[in-house]
Amino acid sequence: MRVAIIGGDKRMLFAARAFCDKGADVSVAGFDGLERFSGIGIMEPSEAAAWADNIVLPLPCVKDGRIVAPFSERAILPHELLSDIGEKRVFCGMKERLTPTRCRVYDYASREDFAYRNAILTAEGAIQTAMSRYEGSIFGCRALVLGMGRIGRVLSQDLSALHADVTVAARKESDRAYVEALGMTAADYSLREKYDYDLIFNTVPAMVLPADVLSRTDERTVIIDLASAPGGVDFDYARRRSLTAVHALSLPGRCAPAAAGRIIQETIINIIKEEDGEKEDNRLCDDGVVLHL
Amino acid sequence: MRVAIIGGDKRMLFAARAFCDKGADVSVAGFDGLERFSGIGIMEPSEAAAWADNIVLPLPCVKDGRIVAPFSERAILPHELLSDIGEKRVFCGMKERLTPTRCRVYDYASREDFAYRNAILTAEGAIQTAMSRYEGSIFGCRALVLGMGRIGRVLSQDLSALHADVTVAARKESDRAYVEALGMTAADYSLREKYDYDLIFNTVPAMVLPADVLSRTDERTVIIDLASAPGGVDFDYARRRSLTAVHALSLPGRCAPAAAGRIIQETIINIIKEEDGEKEDNRLCDDGVVLHL
Amino acid sequence: MRVAIIGGDKRMLFAARAFCDKGADVSVAGFDGLERFSGIGIMEPSEAAAWADNIVLPLPCVKDGRIVAPFSERAILPHELLSDIGEKRVFCGMKERLTPTRCRVYDYASREDFAYRNAILTAEGAIQTAMSRYEGSIFGCRALVLGMGRIGRVLSQDLSALHADVTVAARKESDRAYVEALGMTAADYSLREKYDYDLIFNTVPAMVLPADVLSRTDERTVIIDLASAPGGVDFDYARRRSLTAVHALSLPGRCAPAAAGRIIQETIINIIKEEDGEKEDNRLCDDGVVLHL
Amino acid sequence: MRVAIIGGDKRMLFAARAFCDKGADVSVAGFDGLERFSGIGIMEPSEAAAWADNIVLPLPCVKDGRIVAPFSERAILPHELLSDIGEKRVFCGMKERLTPTRCRVYDYASREDFAYRNAILTAEGAIQTAMSRYEGSIFGCRALVLGMGRIGRVLSQDLSALHADVTVAARKESDRAYVEALGMTAADYSLREKYDYDLIFNTVPAMVLPADVLSRTDERTVIIDLASAPGGVDFDYARRRSLTAVHALSLPGRCAPAAAGRIIQETIINIIKEEDGEKEDNRLCDDGVVLHL
Repeated sequence: MRVAIIGGDKRMLFAARAFCDKGADVSVAGFDGLERFSGIGIMEPSEAAAWADNIVLPLPCVKDGRIVAPFSERAILPHELLSDIGEKRVFCGMKERLTPTRCRVYDYASREDFAYRNAILTAEGAIQTAMSRYEGSIFGCRALVLGMGRIGRVLSQDLSALHADVTVAARKESDRAYVEALGMTAADYSLREKYDYDLIFNTVPAMVLPADVLSRTDERTVIIDLASAPGGVDFDYARRRSLTAVHALSLPGRCAPAAAGRIIQETIINIIKEEDGEKEDNRLCDDGVVLHL
Repeated sequence: MRVAIIGGDKRMLFAARAFCDKGADVSVAGFDGLERFSGIGIMEPSEAAAWADNIVLPLPCVKDGRIVAPFSERAILPHELLSDIGEKRVFCGMKERLTPTRCRVYDYASREDFAYRNAILTAEGAIQTAMSRYEGSIFGCRALVLGMGRIGRVLSQDLSALHADVTVAARKESDRAYVEALGMTAADYSLREKYDYDLIFNTVPAMVLPADVLSRTDERTVIIDLASAPGGVDFDYARRRSLTAVHALSLPGRCAPAAAGRIIQETIINIIKEEDGEKEDNRLCDDGVVLHL
Repeated sequence: MRVAIIGGDKRMLFAARAFCDKGADVSVAGFDGLERFSGIGIMEPSEAAAWADNIVLPLPCVKDGRIVAPFSERAILPHELLSDIGEKRVFCGMKERLTPTRCRVYDYASREDFAYRNAILTAEGAIQTAMSRYEGSIFGCRALVLGMGRIGRVLSQDLSALHADVTVAARKESDRAYVEALGMTAADYSLREKYDYDLIFNTVPAMVLPADVLSRTDERTVIIDLASAPGGVDFDYARRRSLTAVHALSLPGRCAPAAAGRIIQETIINIIKEEDGEKEDNRLCDDGVVLHL
Repeated sequence: MRVAIIGGDKRMLFAARAFCDKGADVSVAGFDGLERFSGIGIMEPSEAAAWADNIVLPLPCVKDGRIVAPFSERAILPHELLSDIGEKRVFCGMKERLTPTRCRVYDYASREDFAYRNAILTAEGAIQTAMSRYEGSIFGCRALVLGMGRIGRVLSQDLSALHADVTVAARKESDRAYVEALGMTAADYSLREKYDYDLIFNTVPAMVLPADVLSRTDERTVIIDLASAPGGVDFDYARRRSLTAVHALSLPGRCAPAAAGRIIQETIINIIKEEDGEKEDNRLCDDGVVLHL
């Protein structure tokens, strides 16, 4: 199995190493300064694409019409790279950004196994950010988590495990009931109360902390916004009121690039196994044998 | 506020006491042997229905055409009881069993706040059942939980908290990913592996442990089926193979009647508050003030 | 390796099976009704002692001058059994009850590895007892644990893991500080406050719940005394006040005999390994090589 | 109550604020650049000592013959400061560094309530350090904690709560047994095995990671030494082998100064209460009333 990792940041180098550790032949492209890397081949992008059976692109794969490659001076253009690769498999994050192509493209970032494991890294990055910005301790602090999606679930339970006093705000009644079954406090987004917390983490991609709410938070509160741009905090207002509000983006790649890279690699392996497994399943089905509940 | 509790088991007496503790006027009916009960009035069913503003029926409310009342010799018929109560509120479990009625009927058992808290009691009852039937310890045992709904979630985390080695089988990929983010092992229902567990808990209302699967479990495995009748285990086959398989039903009422009763009372209070709150909200809305995110 | 299990209850049969599972030759004695048992030899006590290299006695090993053997009609006398066994190893619980003997006797029950693992079983048995006697749920209950020794530590953390609201009373300031670092509430044994708890567990072998204290507990409180006889509760007073007070003894053997038996077997294996290891260590020391920090 | 905080770092300013929040009259000294601070009086050291009833010095209180005061240009000499304070109470950390004095000196840092709460902050600081230096995630990493004292206990349980795979090395058998009862892996300090961990935390103030051991760690391992100088790691060797080894000192003051300051303030309040309580107790004792178990 030949894998080419093309573009991306540090995290993709760790993905390359993870493939290598599992016995794959690996090459990387799009890292200009890189001269040697753990015995992994370094190629030109087009050369790597021609050489490999499996092409791995970063998350997100494309921005401003180019493959995302912060360590490369030259532009890597998706249509040039993928125009002539035939039946090769392409793995990327945010597949919708690759203009229609005839390749077999798989989006690792849209999968549940990727998303939850990435959420774990985001939650740890959020805790690291809180620890470095907040002058108190997680133990015993009053923390509010906005949202009970993947990140909200993992983050709130991590904080609770470290003995914070956690409140989770969730819109759905079933989520709030689950929060209480986990021994935490549930809240809705009602604006009536004072926001009396040491730490506020937002995971909701909507304006959930507008000026109106921020005006009622304590001035010592540290706010960490994990929602992708533009986030859910009125940062202008926060600045005017001298509140500590951090927009913490891309935490997995920044705080735990090795783990983030390994997750990409493992998700791709899962995709390949499922594809091959499904083929096998289909074969078995011909014999009328496959039984799933 | 006058509350009449009519029918039901021990759990409903605890619900009565919980209302009483909160300052309500309470009467109970449908408990033949009961002569005194914590200063709560004891009435005939029709008398109680006439006296009260709020009528509380058990979970399930009706079976075989009668209000469920295991402690009453005489039949309590729903249409007689509720024919002439006007605007009074009726609270019950499994509302659909009350034939069409013109009353204002609220189903506490269909609500999330009730369901999750009841799931906590079911999970504790399942652990108690396992402790009394299994000769090993929860600590270090290999436990399989089938299903990641409310009960599966709470039960698997309780077991994990007691240091069992927990595997959760779930159909949805997102549930399996969540299981792993919680530090447990995820599985699908594939029939290919050996079922090598000390304890198996089923929460899925479908035949998930048929003879075929049971034939591959260890003979020392203890199986606890929490799914409502007919359950998810081939009990006939289990008996023939001398497996320990327990169909554990109505655990909240049997293992923690006081908590189960209090949950009913608190859910009803929540329903009343929301109703009244909504009225108030509507009033506020006239002034154009209510703001929810 | 030949192992004879002589006397004891169900737990010792599980110990026998655990030895057998690990490939030892095993025989049992002192179980009158037993005709067959998983292919393990059944012998007379003296015959078993003569046959084996390793003799295993129960916990406690001796009571009223006899080997404890509730399933045997005939008395098994320690001096008769062990008078002529030469260099054989004898493993027992509460070694001090074996009158001075020239045998090599090892007390598995006095070891830390045994004691903590047994404490886990006691804690689980205590929770099972609480679940069956208390009509509320562990989730959210107010629990008091008296003592922060092995059982107190494990039990309080188990209860806390199940989301009880746990207070631990401990005499030593360092224990109380540790309790708070674990996110629980610490208390001393001061008699000044009201004892306002749903569940009280005593682990201290001293009269810590005298009439004076019991008079200030709520009448619904369930008290579970885990301290060996005579326990730490004024049971007479509790009876007069109709309090629920349970003296729960020998929980490992009663609630989890398979685990209790396996712990005995594994502790004995540890003793043997250490003995043999030490011999090896001594040999190595001759070469001046052993380095421990 | 008049409290003077003299010397120390940021943490002491937070201690000042914590006293102030509780209604005390507070002044600070030894912070040259400080012109205003939350309405707290700023004085010269001698002036503050004369004004206050209670004098609070930092942790450690004295170094190189001077009160530790990193934010003061001028030397504050202990004998000058405390020569003429009569019956005033002095609170400090590491009391033994104050040359014999006739004052009433209390060492807050030597108390259990301080030590465990400080250990919580150290554990959190250690996790923050690990998160910023290790490129993987805490979730799923293989972590070794050396030592099962206060910091080892809190840190290992925090790591375990974040789903790391934790091994704790402890010299005492009882500590190792406790580690296993907590669901973690116990080890001794035997040098025989390979040190195959992602993260190693040392809490033992002795050379536990000499060159010999370091030579057998993986080169990707991140080592965090929490033991006070000179620590327990052969840092020279680690540097030569390009291992990541961090000597992380004074974590509470650096990572969570607000919490560290509050702990100092609360411990001092505890000391005062106990003193006053004891006086009261003595009075009560005259009446023969005090009863403690």
